Amino acid sequence: MTAPRAGWVDGMQYCNWSRRIFEQMREAGLSAVHATVAYHEGFRPTVDKIVAWNWRFRDHADLIIPGRSAADLMRALSSNRTAIILGLQNPLPIEDDLGLVAVLHELGIRVMQLTYNNQSLLGCGWTEAEDSGLTKFGREVVREMNRIGMLIDLSHAGERTALDTIAASQRPVAITHATPASWREGKRQVSDTLLKALADSGGMLGFSLYPYHLRDGSATTLSSFCEMVARTAESVGVVHLGIGSDLCQDQPDEALLWMREGKWLRADRGQGKPEFPAQPPWFEDSRGFANIAGGLRDAGFAAADVEAMLGTNWQRFFRAAFRPWGEGER
Amino acid sequence: MTAPRAGWVDGMQYCNWSRRIFEQMREAGLSAVHATVAYHEGFRPTVDKIVAWNWRFRDHADLIIPGRSAADLMRALSSNRTAIILGLQNPLPIEDDLGLVAVLHELGIRVMQLTYNNQSLLGCGWTEAEDSGLTKFGREVVREMNRIGMLIDLSHAGERTALDTIAASQRPVAITHATPASWREGKRQVSDTLLKALADSGGMLGFSLYPYHLRDGSATTLSSFCEMVARTAESVGVVHLGIGSDLCQDQPDEALLWMREGKWLRADRGQGKPEFPAQPPWFEDSRGFANIAGGLRDAGFAAADVEAMLGTNWQRFFRAAFRPWGEGER
Repeated sequence: MTAPRAGWVDGMQYCNWSRRIFEQMREAGLSAVHATVAYHEGFRPTVDKIVAWNWRFRDHADLIIPGRSAADLMRALSSNRTAIILGLQNPLPIEDDLGLVAVLHELGIRVMQLTYNNQSLLGCGWTEAEDSGLTKFGREVVREMNRIGMLIDLSHAGERTALDTIAASQRPVAITHATPASWREGKRQVSDTLLKALADSGGMLGFSLYPYHLRDGSATTLSSFCEMVARTAESVGVVHLGIGSDLCQDQPDEALLWMREGKWLRADRGQGKPEFPAQPPWFEDSRGFANIAGGLRDAGFAAADVEAMLGTNWQRFFRAAFRPWGEGER
Repeated sequence: MTAPRAGWVDGMQYCNWSRRIFEQMREAGLSAVHATVAYHEGFRPTVDKIVAWNWRFRDHADLIIPGRSAADLMRALSSNRTAIILGLQNPLPIEDDLGLVAVLHELGIRVMQLTYNNQSLLGCGWTEAEDSGLTKFGREVVREMNRIGMLIDLSHAGERTALDTIAASQRPVAITHATPASWREGKRQVSDTLLKALADSGGMLGFSLYPYHLRDGSATTLSSFCEMVARTAESVGVVHLGIGSDLCQDQPDEALLWMREGKWLRADRGQGKPEFPAQPPWFEDSRGFANIAGGLRDAGFAAADVEAMLGTNWQRFFRAAFRPWGEGER
């Protein structure tokens, strides 16, 4: 595997972070990675996880830097390091306090999902039987995220909540990690309606490489994946597309249990605990970006479009998304 | 009372904040005020208090701005507003976690006392029978505060802890609110030994206007106060001196109980609850700065020295103190 040029971006990873993983990001030429900090954690344990990131930034300053602004993303590129953009997959860390959005922003959080799989205080996740849409508190949080420059992520939202949010948000939003429902059926995937609304509002979709989001799971071929990208690009245009691998490298299976159940569910363990599926062999870690580049070229994409989808689209989008809006006090 | 020129600084206030108080700061010509956020609060309630400040900064943006950097202090001056510098009188908000120093710094805290009146995890307060000095954790926190640019405040420290800290700190420290023990006896006041060590290391003393720190309490005259300032200036030089009023304007007496007892003491209430003493009539609120200016001129100070002690010394000192040291990651 040859080291690709720098500048690619992964729109979402949730790895069991280590120096080896950061080194692989560098080998892969990733200039930025959006990293999940919390799923079902409240505010206080989320702060502990941010502290752990602060130490990582100091311990591995030769490989990674905090990715909080356009300037940080540029600095990562120019110094051959990876900007780590911290994000939350669930709004539990803000509790019921609008003021905690700005607090978490000041601590470096730049992306937040309004819902994980379940109903949240802000809106509805994709696994609920009924989606009643964006709540009153949800509308306040959307306004606040717009104001301070925290990107709204709808990856795990129910469709009505997602459409409500796109309509309510004055800034483009993202679905950082998902695939189209036209390729793999299911409510977790993005319907044509949602994909169109997302693109029409200037949003971004990051294509997931998580096997449960791939048409044939772990056996999905690179060419099938790249054909799907090609069809999606024909439908909404290359400019709205990137990668959000959902890579869960080196995570123990307990992490999957936490993602699925948090503290709210205690399922029957008769059939044993769930296990992470195997990654497809062409995307086992960040270095798989080179394989995707090759696959996209084989699927007929021009070199500039490959670069756009593997990096420059997210670069442009994140730079705009993290900019504070209007007359901030600081 | 005429409105004095802008640029004066109060090195410490703990008022029951309101728009009226911020308006008085403007009338007084205060370009910066160090405001206490917490005494006996832990991390989580301190975050709630920071959130309350964030809303104040938005609700009263015409009067106050966050004071976090030299640039903020300059901006306050040039826009005729007061920079509010947030500080902690106790290290309880960092719990036992070195990483929370940087977290609170990112949330805007720029000053922290290593001890309030009692023993803390970092060192000893002035009310303990024995002061065993700066602890192991205390030395780590001093190093971290030095690194990120959070000012060390020794106002309530025991003398040995204070001297240990001055020796351990690689940057100048402050006693933001106190008076010399040579003027009013007592362990809460600053001994000649400590005053000399503070000045020799480039530190600052803010003169308190809290009656319990004044020689004759509420009856202390302006000329007595200014004579004391003159003697202190002869001893250590004008450059190390400022005002740190310890003004507790509009606070209910419960606030005094909280300051004294927190959650650690439940004293016999046979004699009723303690009450705040009356301020001397020449310093009832921030506008008393004009009276002090007059008093200092009457005591023989040149106009430039009055300006230095009422504002420019703290301005210079804070600008340097808040600058991150060495190669910060950001």
